[in-house]
Amino acid sequence: MIVPTLGTMLENIGLLLALASARGVAAASKALAPAELNARSYSLLEQIVLADGPSQRDLADALRLDPSQIVALVDQLEDRGFAERRPAPTDRRLKAVVVTDQGRRFYAQVRADVERSLDDVLADLSRDEREQLRSLLHRIARPESAAPELVD
Amino acid sequence: MIVPTLGTMLENIGLLLALASARGVAAASKALAPAELNARSYSLLEQIVLADGPSQRDLADALRLDPSQIVALVDQLEDRGFAERRPAPTDRRLKAVVVTDQGRRFYAQVRADVERSLDDVLADLSRDEREQLRSLLHRIARPESAAPELVD
Repeated sequence: MIVPTLGTMLENIGLLLALASARGVAAASKALAPAELNARSYSLLEQIVLADGPSQRDLADALRLDPSQIVALVDQLEDRGFAERRPAPTDRRLKAVVVTDQGRRFYAQVRADVERSLDDVLADLSRDEREQLRSLLHRIARPESAAPELVD
Repeated sequence: MIVPTLGTMLENIGLLLALASARGVAAASKALAPAELNARSYSLLEQIVLADGPSQRDLADALRLDPSQIVALVDQLEDRGFAERRPAPTDRRLKAVVVTDQGRRFYAQVRADVERSLDDVLADLSRDEREQLRSLLHRIARPESAAPELVD
């Protein structure tokens, strides 16, 4: 009898997503450990660096986290001097989360390490395949069919 | 000033993997809740149904879990009458995990629900794109560069 090889069989795509994600998170966490940051806080800092003063609700939507989790995570970034809450220029009753110069420098520094670690995870994929993957994942993570308008 | 839209910007592929995986796990968990099974136990049962009497080590490798976690999960499947440990035919000192008839029927039943839920998650992707995604994820989750030979 031929024994099928585990792991080369047709697998449910949910499991493959979970396994691939776990590899990515493990690699990023390892890269970020010396900086005492976890992968989630890194992604939050990245959003704050890339966006122009997002609100906490924008950040909750972007990371698919509960607003209360975002508050706690922003607190941590604030405590480390990487981010500040300021009144939003468009509506001073709202709070925008803004990166500090120190936060921007820190991000630039750890980003290289995180990208190197993801590079290892994606080692078997060509540059084109990585872009293909990014585009496909984007349509799962942020489907057009469900995407809320997040422009401030 | 143009305010960039959060979530449409270039994002790190690690975050996209995590977000896509979280959507998949949430959908599968919801589909499996009436059957009182979680996504992880479902994936384990799937491996046991599809493989021919894998060992607990095979299962740990396939799901990238610690062998002790696999022992606990196999215990749960055994308690529900879905799986049994038997001496492996190739080496009676080893234990093979074998699906029971009841386990096979249960899997067939919940599988339809899980696949429907993943279908929702992948709604924006064509059939070809889903296969493309599966193939790319497979090479991240089980890279050829690192894949152990799991044939019994």
